[in-house]
Amino acid sequence: MRFAVQDPDFEKRVRASFARQKLMSTIGAELTKIAPGEAEITLPYRDDLTQQHGFIHAGIVATLADTACGYAAFSLMPADAAILTVEYKINLMSPATGERLSARGRVIRPGRTLTVCAGEVIAYQQGKGKTVATMLATMMALPNQEGLEG
Amino acid sequence: MRFAVQDPDFEKRVRASFARQKLMSTIGAELTKIAPGEAEITLPYRDDLTQQHGFIHAGIVATLADTACGYAAFSLMPADAAILTVEYKINLMSPATGERLSARGRVIRPGRTLTVCAGEVIAYQQGKGKTVATMLATMMALPNQEGLEG
Amino acid sequence: MRFAVQDPDFEKRVRASFARQKLMSTIGAELTKIAPGEAEITLPYRDDLTQQHGFIHAGIVATLADTACGYAAFSLMPADAAILTVEYKINLMSPATGERLSARGRVIRPGRTLTVCAGEVIAYQQGKGKTVATMLATMMALPNQEGLEG
Amino acid sequence: MRFAVQDPDFEKRVRASFARQKLMSTIGAELTKIAPGEAEITLPYRDDLTQQHGFIHAGIVATLADTACGYAAFSLMPADAAILTVEYKINLMSPATGERLSARGRVIRPGRTLTVCAGEVIAYQQGKGKTVATMLATMMALPNQEGLEG
Repeated sequence: MRFAVQDPDFEKRVRASFARQKLMSTIGAELTKIAPGEAEITLPYRDDLTQQHGFIHAGIVATLADTACGYAAFSLMPADAAILTVEYKINLMSPATGERLSARGRVIRPGRTLTVCAGEVIAYQQGKGKTVATMLATMMALPNQEGLEG
Repeated sequence: MRFAVQDPDFEKRVRASFARQKLMSTIGAELTKIAPGEAEITLPYRDDLTQQHGFIHAGIVATLADTACGYAAFSLMPADAAILTVEYKINLMSPATGERLSARGRVIRPGRTLTVCAGEVIAYQQGKGKTVATMLATMMALPNQEGLEG
Repeated sequence: MRFAVQDPDFEKRVRASFARQKLMSTIGAELTKIAPGEAEITLPYRDDLTQQHGFIHAGIVATLADTACGYAAFSLMPADAAILTVEYKINLMSPATGERLSARGRVIRPGRTLTVCAGEVIAYQQGKGKTVATMLATMMALPNQEGLEG
Repeated sequence: MRFAVQDPDFEKRVRASFARQKLMSTIGAELTKIAPGEAEITLPYRDDLTQQHGFIHAGIVATLADTACGYAAFSLMPADAAILTVEYKINLMSPATGERLSARGRVIRPGRTLTVCAGEVIAYQQGKGKTVATMLATMMALPNQEGLEG
């Protein structure tokens, strides 16, 4: 799907908002792609983010997918909107192992108030990618929040 | 609901597994309650876990609820079982703000293979609690995994 | 939880809207309770609503829970609002068998635009009830839709 | 994705199971496609399946998607397995209106016990299709149930 943006400066706006998410720098995640209705966040493997079996914790996998979905939706919102996650559902299909995780979010239904997004998380091991999680998320635009996401 | 445990040493087993989750110590979360079919995890507010508006990131809120649900289910499993999260859905109902978050997980339907759990996350501000998120999760027992969770 | 209604005639409004749902009469479902933030819908067992093993089809179980959640939310909305289901998640925990099903919806977080509800479906067999499904749903109020639900 | 079937007679087995779902004939739904890991179910519009605004009820939309996902998963299961829906989440993105609905289910992660599926429901109006709902579902195989689905 191709989407029209309402704010031509969407990339700058998304990057500024991402930079304000302290959790992203705490865990070492980077925004590696932003396009209209799409975002990708990448996380190199880190031992301090693991669950009891040595895999990246499901909570971190979900954090990446939620954030990628959020910025995919945010890219299509007006310049003065703030965004929040209403809800999501995630299926964890394989252990999150390998050198890095890449979460991709894309808009499947944009809306003035609510935007529905799909996310997936791919684990890369020796160059080979495997989908480890899939998400379906609902995002909400809060209008007239000038500066909040800046 | 009251549940019968299969492993009388469930508390020791849950605490040992929780202690192996490096993410929990990375974010400063503690297992503050464990009972048959119930678990509570508490996280003091930390600025380095925030999203762009200064609230605790939804991903961390979900991490706490998922982990509390997981240990609620794990408390009822046999001694040699390992556990994994199949999937969950979370509604984020209010910003996660305040001095600390408390995630409570409880089993609503135990099963040999699958266990369904409900979770909620409460934010405490000046002693007053507010439910900020609610979760519905499916957990899976993997039998004969002696030592994996130990 | 106790909720304040915005429309003192909420019961009349809910019953009028329910009566307009042709599917409800097609399957033989009745609105058996309506209170602020709560609704119950009851369905006697019918062989023509079954899936391949002779149980009531999961889709009908979900229909009842979704509708009960919807009217639980609708009871708290202003008189001129219309309602729609944004999304829901349901766990089907046991086969839906017995003489009748009873779906209960209740509001867990009301809001001007979005309302979060929990639902459960109980199957009654020889007077004994068993919870067969649990739901978490997001409902949306559309303002200024005078007459649409009437 | 391409999937290998375990049962070369999967189509016959799926069609026999579908034929036993009395709800499908009650609402007038047909199984219009079955392939390894994929299924499609089509429903002509019927006034007696509507909600209060005259659209096809969300519960029927979900019923179609759930059933399509179920048979997509069932096509990959062994000949003696029975299937049940563990849980699903659905986003209802637009009103289900038009001449007919078509629900497509496809497997995104097959497994011995659990299979994850994605579903979508398309409403056709004057030959033009619009996606009105999207689903993420978890299906479970019950082994050694010879004859139950036949």
